[in-house]
Amino acid sequence: MAQGAREAQASATDSEFDRDTSVTLREPGVYDADLSEGWTILSAVNGGYLLAIVARALRDALPHPDPFTVTAHYLTPSKPGPAVVRTEAVRTGRTLATGQASLFQYEADGTEVERVRVLAAYGALHSLDDDVHTSVKPPVLPPPEQCLGTEDGPAAFPDDSGFAQRVAIRLDPATTGWAVGAPSGKGEMRGWFSLADAREPDPLSLLLTVDSFPPTAFDLGLMGWTPTVELTTHVRARPAPGPLRVFVTTRNLAGGYLEEDAEVWDTADRLVAQSRQLARAPRSGRAPEGR
Amino acid sequence: MAQGAREAQASATDSEFDRDTSVTLREPGVYDADLSEGWTILSAVNGGYLLAIVARALRDALPHPDPFTVTAHYLTPSKPGPAVVRTEAVRTGRTLATGQASLFQYEADGTEVERVRVLAAYGALHSLDDDVHTSVKPPVLPPPEQCLGTEDGPAAFPDDSGFAQRVAIRLDPATTGWAVGAPSGKGEMRGWFSLADAREPDPLSLLLTVDSFPPTAFDLGLMGWTPTVELTTHVRARPAPGPLRVFVTTRNLAGGYLEEDAEVWDTADRLVAQSRQLARAPRSGRAPEGR
Repeated sequence: MAQGAREAQASATDSEFDRDTSVTLREPGVYDADLSEGWTILSAVNGGYLLAIVARALRDALPHPDPFTVTAHYLTPSKPGPAVVRTEAVRTGRTLATGQASLFQYEADGTEVERVRVLAAYGALHSLDDDVHTSVKPPVLPPPEQCLGTEDGPAAFPDDSGFAQRVAIRLDPATTGWAVGAPSGKGEMRGWFSLADAREPDPLSLLLTVDSFPPTAFDLGLMGWTPTVELTTHVRARPAPGPLRVFVTTRNLAGGYLEEDAEVWDTADRLVAQSRQLARAPRSGRAPEGR
Repeated sequence: MAQGAREAQASATDSEFDRDTSVTLREPGVYDADLSEGWTILSAVNGGYLLAIVARALRDALPHPDPFTVTAHYLTPSKPGPAVVRTEAVRTGRTLATGQASLFQYEADGTEVERVRVLAAYGALHSLDDDVHTSVKPPVLPPPEQCLGTEDGPAAFPDDSGFAQRVAIRLDPATTGWAVGAPSGKGEMRGWFSLADAREPDPLSLLLTVDSFPPTAFDLGLMGWTPTVELTTHVRARPAPGPLRVFVTTRNLAGGYLEEDAEVWDTADRLVAQSRQLARAPRSGRAPEGR
């Protein structure tokens, strides 16, 4: 390994994200993890953070390194504390491997309760050809210093949220009217995303990024929890270093559910991730419970 | 059951789609099926048809009737003939149930080979509230008689395709330039969809509809197979009777892969389904093989 690569790796390993998503092999295919309080919003563990943990276990369990498409179903609310990820290699091909994984936590008597189930295909992003024919354009955003972060109050997240300490999100002011009671009604969130400790983005951290912004429901005038039922993310390229631009939209709020589509763009103007989730529309400001 | 409902059900049961997606309970959670030659394109069994079979088994296995979000990973190419669907009820809640299923076929020696793995959440569409705040508009299409079907040649599907006999797709001429060597380059397909025997749409048939149109890659000038890696569909409402309008777009063709987003609209102007798939971009006109 070249000296530069070694240094970069060490730097990545020291990051909050890498430390808090680390998994330890217990036996073949089974990984112990610890859900950190640092990635909670009020008492809820962020779904993108959970996904990054599961994806890291799958990366170890499968022969290809990068998540190409990852679907997560959120079954029960996760809590900070110990967890175990059980993986299954479903099928391994020359360029793609399909894997499944579940994250469990423990009842007081040690019984395992499933929190998240994931189905994913992994490949090698560096081995893909260089052709890019992306027809959609990056979102137009004011520069970061003209966007609003948590320190600018109105806060994107509650003050006691660990999550707000670990991500540096700066929202386009055009999508923050909800914070002062004047949502645009468009169902959009746009802004800049970095990890607070400046750890550079990679395919695993993109799984966090797609689920890191305030709910688009806020911009539709619906405040409260929007618990994710299912989230699918396509990671399409290794992101270039630097802040990411994120554009999230909801086009179909109906019947008490809504979809949220996120695009993530890197500093090289590459569309590096696309995600869509199905979530319940907010009914109240209460924390998520069983369904 | 009212007389009208009974007749409608009988009519649905006689349809090609219902006959060819039928599953027979072998033992709890395990269903026998038979993949019909009627839903092939050249030698490949259509992915949406496969999905409808798996979703029908899951509907029987789970306590809630309608697929809300269904993710399928296509592992190996399916062939007409016997198959078995093995289901697992992952979690059952009051309003949602999460299930998993795999469709297998048999080697000559009887070994089961997994073709498709599915992770899904089911609920009851009729129990959702009536609020609809869909911001996106239905696609603007010429009336069906001004759109192009297989009988108008250029053909949307090869002549020997059973699939072309069972679906009535009429494409907006603006998205058929590829058939005469003049693709628009936009990566769009728009048109009307019905089942050829006039069986009315329902949540299961929507899973077929989202994967029924010619690949958007054709409209980007790339002819050939675009094998699906993963397909996720959100079914958002029970469709009203009558022909469906389908709008499929690709915005990100890069690195040898592309996403395809489909919207399906019913005659009541309701966005009844949204889907996204990750597929391999065409490299040649050969039939799909292992990966």
